[in-house]
Amino acid sequence: MSAALAPEAERLARVGLAQLTEPGDPRVAAVVAEAGAQVLYADVLRQRADRTTRQIREDAESRLGGRDPADELADAAKAGLRFVVPGDEEWPSQLEDLAHAPALQQRGGPPLGLWVRGPVRLDTLAGSVAVVGSRSATSYGGDAAGLIAAVVARAGCPIVSGAAYGIDQAAHRGALGGGGTTVAVLACGADRIYPEGHRDLLEHLAREGAVISETRPGGAPMRIRFLSRNRIIAALAAGTVLVEAAVRSGALNTANWAGRLNRPVMGVPGPITSAPSQGVHQLLRSGAATLVTSGSEVLDVVSPAGEHVVEEPRGRERSRDRLSSQDRQVLDAVPVRHGAGTHSIARAAGLAMLTVASALERLRGGGYVEKDEGGWRLAALAHD
Amino acid sequence: MSAALAPEAERLARVGLAQLTEPGDPRVAAVVAEAGAQVLYADVLRQRADRTTRQIREDAESRLGGRDPADELADAAKAGLRFVVPGDEEWPSQLEDLAHAPALQQRGGPPLGLWVRGPVRLDTLAGSVAVVGSRSATSYGGDAAGLIAAVVARAGCPIVSGAAYGIDQAAHRGALGGGGTTVAVLACGADRIYPEGHRDLLEHLAREGAVISETRPGGAPMRIRFLSRNRIIAALAAGTVLVEAAVRSGALNTANWAGRLNRPVMGVPGPITSAPSQGVHQLLRSGAATLVTSGSEVLDVVSPAGEHVVEEPRGRERSRDRLSSQDRQVLDAVPVRHGAGTHSIARAAGLAMLTVASALERLRGGGYVEKDEGGWRLAALAHD
Repeated sequence: MSAALAPEAERLARVGLAQLTEPGDPRVAAVVAEAGAQVLYADVLRQRADRTTRQIREDAESRLGGRDPADELADAAKAGLRFVVPGDEEWPSQLEDLAHAPALQQRGGPPLGLWVRGPVRLDTLAGSVAVVGSRSATSYGGDAAGLIAAVVARAGCPIVSGAAYGIDQAAHRGALGGGGTTVAVLACGADRIYPEGHRDLLEHLAREGAVISETRPGGAPMRIRFLSRNRIIAALAAGTVLVEAAVRSGALNTANWAGRLNRPVMGVPGPITSAPSQGVHQLLRSGAATLVTSGSEVLDVVSPAGEHVVEEPRGRERSRDRLSSQDRQVLDAVPVRHGAGTHSIARAAGLAMLTVASALERLRGGGYVEKDEGGWRLAALAHD
Repeated sequence: MSAALAPEAERLARVGLAQLTEPGDPRVAAVVAEAGAQVLYADVLRQRADRTTRQIREDAESRLGGRDPADELADAAKAGLRFVVPGDEEWPSQLEDLAHAPALQQRGGPPLGLWVRGPVRLDTLAGSVAVVGSRSATSYGGDAAGLIAAVVARAGCPIVSGAAYGIDQAAHRGALGGGGTTVAVLACGADRIYPEGHRDLLEHLAREGAVISETRPGGAPMRIRFLSRNRIIAALAAGTVLVEAAVRSGALNTANWAGRLNRPVMGVPGPITSAPSQGVHQLLRSGAATLVTSGSEVLDVVSPAGEHVVEEPRGRERSRDRLSSQDRQVLDAVPVRHGAGTHSIARAAGLAMLTVASALERLRGGGYVEKDEGGWRLAALAHD
C-alpha cells in the first residue's frame, strides 16, 4: 500500500495488543507512548501468570486472544483488510493529537493502529470533515446533512462519519451524490456489516471509499466501542459538524472529542420545537460549537488559510476644499482650543442650530472637529 | 398620571419640536441634550424666516406645523393620548441610553417624548423583553414567538413589539394568552390604526396595555419612521429577541439597535432551509446574538441578577488510608524527586504495566503523584 512501512515487529506487537486490550483504553495509549508497543506487549504476555494481573488476563482470555498476531494479519489481508500503524506512510498523523487530549469516559489516546478496508488512503483525510448526528433523524436533519456533505465533498474535502441510520447515512449519500470521497469509521470490526440494512452502503464504501475500525476484525459493536470510535472520527477530521442530536445523543460525544482536540465544532440549527435539535442548540448556546447553515460555511470554518476580510483603512479627509461652503462657514465658527456649544457656533455662523448640528456631525466624520464635555473644537490635526 | 411632572413649558416645547422635526433625528436629540428643548424650539421658530434655513422651514411647513402645541396636547388628551417627557415620573429612563449610542441610518438619540394610549405606565417597562421579527412569518415562527412571549410575560416581564402581522402579532397574542402585559410601539401616530386588520388588537392593547409612538398624533407610517421606531423598541426593552428575519428584514435593524445599546440580542434558530430564518442565523453566526430556544432561556439572559452556577470546589484527597492496598503499593514505588517511567515503577512494585498505569492515573487524580517529561514522581504536597 505504501513505500515506507513500520517495522514488522512493531506492527505485530500492535496487532497483539489490539487483540488483548479494548480500543480506546487510555492506559494502553499512555504506556505505548512512553515505553513502546513491543515493551507493553511483552509485559502483558509475561504477566499473564501473575496473580495481580488476573483481571487483565481474564479480560484478555475472554477475547479471541492468544492467536498469533501474524496469523491474524494474514487472515485479515485475505478479507481485504490492512492494519495501518504509526510509521506507515499512510498513517494519519493527526491522530497523534489524541495523545494530548484528556480522556473522556475512560477512553482516550491514539489508537494502536487502524484496520482499513477500501482504496482511500488514511493520509488523504487530513482536511476531511466529520458529519455526525442522531440515528433517529428527521427528514429535515437528513436533508441538511446530505446538502452539507455534498457541498463539502464536492469541494474536495472527504466526509468522515459512522455507518448508522439517520445522519451518518445521509452524510455518506450526500458526499457520494456530490461526487466526493467518504469514509465510515465503525465500532465493530471493519469486516463486519452493521447495521445489516447498510450492507449495500458499506460494500460501496469498501469499494470506493474506506471502512475503518480500531476494533480487531470480527469484533462486535459494543457501547464502549462507540465511545472509542467517536474519538477516531473527531481526530481524523479537521472539523466536526453536528446535525440533529437529542440532549443525550452519542453524537454529542463526537462533538466533545472534537472540542478536546481543539478542532472546530459546528452545529446545524433546527426548529426549537424539534427534540433532535435540542442537543445541537445546547452546544451552540454554550459556545462550544459554531452555527453553520451550509456547506460553504463549513468550508469557511475548516479551510486552513481562513478567510480574512481585510478592512479597508478609512483615510481621513482633511482638505477644506472638499467641504461645502456651508460646512466651511460652520468650521470657521468652531473655536480652536476651548470647546463651544452648538448654540454659540450657530450664532457665530449665523445659521440655524439644526443646520449647524448636522454640519458639525459631517465635520466630525471628516476629522475636522472634535467633541468633548466642553463642546465642539477643532480637531488636533485640522489646522492645515 | 403621575405625581412628578415635567414643567409645562418644557413639555410644550417638546410637542412643538415634535411637530416640526422627524422622529429619531439625531441632530435634534443632540441639540436638545446640549441646549434644551426650549432653546432649540425658540431657535427653530426664530430661524424660520432665515434664507439659510429654507429647507428646514419647508420641511416644517409641509407638516401640520404651526399649530399651537397646547392645542395639540389638548386634542390628543381628548383622544386618550398623553405625551410623556423626561422629568415625568412615568418617563422610562432607559431611553436615555440612546444619547450614547451611535446613530444608525441617520436615526438616533432619545425621543423628545412619547405619545401613549393605554393604562400601562412606561416606567414599568424597564425589565421588558422585545420580541420582533418578520411580517411574513412562517407558522413555525409564529408559534415560536407566541410560546416565548407567553412564558416571558407570565413571569412578569412585559413584552414590547410593533403591531405588524407575523411575529409582532404572535408575540402580543402569546403575551396576552400568558396573562401578561404587552405594549406596541408604532411608526405612525399612536391614535392611528395600522395595519387596518389589527384594529381589534390595537384597541385591546389601548384598553389593557399601551400603544406608544414617538410620531405625533395623526402622523402617517413611513419607512423612515419604522427605522426610528425600531430604536425605541430596542431601548425600552431590557433585551431583544429576534424570531425569523430574512436577510434584509427590518427586524434586524431593531436587533442592531439593541446591540448598539449594549442590551442582550437573542435569536431563535430555525430550519436552515427556511428563508425567514436566514437573517437570524447570520446574526447568531456573527456572534451578535445569543441563541435561545425557550422563554426560560430568554429570562436567564435578561434577568438582572443572572444565574451563576457556582462550581463546587473539588477537594484533593491525600490520605493514604483511603487508597486501596494495590494503589498504596504503586505509590510506594514512585520516586520522590526524579521522575520514573511506568515500566520501572511496575518492576519496582512487581505489578503489570497496565495495572500500574491505571493506579498512577487514580493517584494523579487524588493529588498523590505528578507527571512531567521525566516521568512520574510524588506530588509536592503528597509527603504527609
